[in-house]
Amino acid sequence: MKKAFDTEILSVGTELLLGRVTNTDARDISEMLSKIGINVKYHTVVGDNPERLRACVEIAKQRADIIVTTGGLGPTCDDLTKQVLAESFGLRLVKNEDEDRGLFEYIRTGRGLTPNVHQQALLPEGCTVFHNLWGTAPGCAFEAEGKFVVMLPGPPKECVPMFAACAVPWLKKLSDEVIVSHSVCVFGIGESAVDDLFADEMNRMTNPTMAPYAKECDCLLQITAKAESEEKAEAMIAPVMAHVKERLGDYVYGTDLSCVEEAVMALLKEKNLSFAAAESCTGGDIARRFTELPGASAFFKGGVVSYVNEVKESMLGVDAAVLAEKTAVSREVAAAMAEGVRARLKTDMAVSVTGLAGPDGDGVHEVGTVFIGLAVEGQTFVRETHMGRNRTRSFIRRMAGNHAFDMMRRWMSGLPVEDR
Amino acid sequence: MKKAFDTEILSVGTELLLGRVTNTDARDISEMLSKIGINVKYHTVVGDNPERLRACVEIAKQRADIIVTTGGLGPTCDDLTKQVLAESFGLRLVKNEDEDRGLFEYIRTGRGLTPNVHQQALLPEGCTVFHNLWGTAPGCAFEAEGKFVVMLPGPPKECVPMFAACAVPWLKKLSDEVIVSHSVCVFGIGESAVDDLFADEMNRMTNPTMAPYAKECDCLLQITAKAESEEKAEAMIAPVMAHVKERLGDYVYGTDLSCVEEAVMALLKEKNLSFAAAESCTGGDIARRFTELPGASAFFKGGVVSYVNEVKESMLGVDAAVLAEKTAVSREVAAAMAEGVRARLKTDMAVSVTGLAGPDGDGVHEVGTVFIGLAVEGQTFVRETHMGRNRTRSFIRRMAGNHAFDMMRRWMSGLPVEDR
Repeated sequence: MKKAFDTEILSVGTELLLGRVTNTDARDISEMLSKIGINVKYHTVVGDNPERLRACVEIAKQRADIIVTTGGLGPTCDDLTKQVLAESFGLRLVKNEDEDRGLFEYIRTGRGLTPNVHQQALLPEGCTVFHNLWGTAPGCAFEAEGKFVVMLPGPPKECVPMFAACAVPWLKKLSDEVIVSHSVCVFGIGESAVDDLFADEMNRMTNPTMAPYAKECDCLLQITAKAESEEKAEAMIAPVMAHVKERLGDYVYGTDLSCVEEAVMALLKEKNLSFAAAESCTGGDIARRFTELPGASAFFKGGVVSYVNEVKESMLGVDAAVLAEKTAVSREVAAAMAEGVRARLKTDMAVSVTGLAGPDGDGVHEVGTVFIGLAVEGQTFVRETHMGRNRTRSFIRRMAGNHAFDMMRRWMSGLPVEDR
Repeated sequence: MKKAFDTEILSVGTELLLGRVTNTDARDISEMLSKIGINVKYHTVVGDNPERLRACVEIAKQRADIIVTTGGLGPTCDDLTKQVLAESFGLRLVKNEDEDRGLFEYIRTGRGLTPNVHQQALLPEGCTVFHNLWGTAPGCAFEAEGKFVVMLPGPPKECVPMFAACAVPWLKKLSDEVIVSHSVCVFGIGESAVDDLFADEMNRMTNPTMAPYAKECDCLLQITAKAESEEKAEAMIAPVMAHVKERLGDYVYGTDLSCVEEAVMALLKEKNLSFAAAESCTGGDIARRFTELPGASAFFKGGVVSYVNEVKESMLGVDAAVLAEKTAVSREVAAAMAEGVRARLKTDMAVSVTGLAGPDGDGVHEVGTVFIGLAVEGQTFVRETHMGRNRTRSFIRRMAGNHAFDMMRRWMSGLPVEDR
């Protein structure tokens, strides 16, 4: 078996160090690399400074086999990364005629006169050129001094599709060890509790391994195996996966999903059901999250964001007397919102959320008090949650959405809906 | 003047290297540090592995004055980070009685039986303890070997508030150089074009400095000055800022804003106006984005997510004949949606979005074709955009939202609305 290829992702950009931008490139590249059996061992971020970048490249050469750089290739950075990397590996930069013509064309067709764009066509001699379909600066890859180097532009909308389309095929040829990783996705029980359930087993395991990961409002248990083939790795994972699912029971909403709404989408498809949402404190986040999923329109008809009381009355038919007596943050209003949007949009199911996401309270309820409703034919459920005053606005909104999706999932799966 | 404190943020967690989690902690900490005049020079991510972490700590000790660690303190990681850092600086771990009692209390009050939680009360001797109000694992800070070390738990909901409440005051005492940074926020003109406008000046400037940063769907020009006091730094920035704003004209939507909706909120407040949103392809994202801002309910009454045509008719009053003749992706439907939601929710203004966010098309329009409407008393505007088929669904949705907010900003500022 060939050795495993340890990888370092080296991101170049002062904007990252100033906290203006989040390093999502490193995350996305790491995810893609782990799927093709390449271990990422380090992420490093350094500013637009040749000396410090050079020093980081030297460190990376000592501890990694593959170096992936992001950033420092654009028209505003004097192609810092290319120059430093080429120099470090003793390569000249030579003009790539195809890229040069392409850049000329790009400018000519009206994206504005950007003369400094031409230096982007200078690339390390002998490299594989990654043409940039998503922007201007080309990326590239080369092998030198026994190391494999991939260079990509920094903007995520260029970096990520280019890595998938160009770098992954180039890197896949290097490895013959496969890592397979599956995650068991859990909502309604915390990471600590999951850890306690499996602590002894996890400590004993070496291959496959198992580890719990906390996400913002749910968590997952990751099971990872290394083997010489995908089939063998899968066979190692299968019994562990079955055991974990059995112990966690109906807290498990799926495997290898990135969010609970994906599980909901699959169930809606299976049962051929539609839904709508009436949102107060989540302000459209449930609709937004579900419609991030391509194909959402087959199941989600729409929703009402009833951010103020008069809209709860006019657009959802919530009774003004109930609003006055019970206040907007109540079990009764949550139920009426779900029923109202379901009737008006003529869907099979409807969810609703009303509560206090903070930071300001209403003088009656504690911040973090949220009621989540689910209306189906002939029945309405309401869940009452108290997330605690120390939670952020965005946490409360996201968690409320998770509850709404969880209630839909449970109802469609024939599980109890109100308690969790 | 004391020396500048170079900082390295060292994040510990295999989940970051697997791409399961984005390193938002490093971004948030960097932003807070830059505001108090502390330079972040490196971010490093390493897995839950003592040898590799130890090597990273040695590198950080050589190139940084301040080391901020995140992660590896929780009940599931055997307190890896604390042990390695304490060892590296020759410090013992001793039990902190207050924290130990607090952890016992936390468990007793029903968060579940988590016996491994107690080792979290072991902390480096002589450290300043940062009590964790947002979770269980305490953080801490100490000075040793002329370096300053801050250790924080990894989950962002604990790390970020704890850094702000505990680490910032501790670190502020170290520095007497102040960095002040302001950003000029721009929508409607690209980073390259901004760069071209100011390239010569930027190359000549040393203090203050100026740099353009591309964000997902807009960009900003960052002006940064270092001085011995905030007042002096501000005075250095002011004339540069004025010059930049004059050259960029009405592409500038504000300074030091994180998004165009913040500019819209300020204008709505100034003019005492309300608005509503009718969303098709953005699926609630405009409502969600605006209601992320605390206090949104004073200006945003609500909205309709009309994801399918029948909801455009039933909830917004869009004429079925217009939908049939022009299709949902049209200037006419965008206008009718904005007018419909404005009439029904009785607001001063209303925006609408209808278009194709992809990946699937409708057989008529290219993906990325989006119409954005703005209805005000007696007048309706529509902007037609073609973002290109290579754009991602999330880019198209976000950009469409930016256009809607930009149209509101322009109308409230007395600027032309439809062209940009």
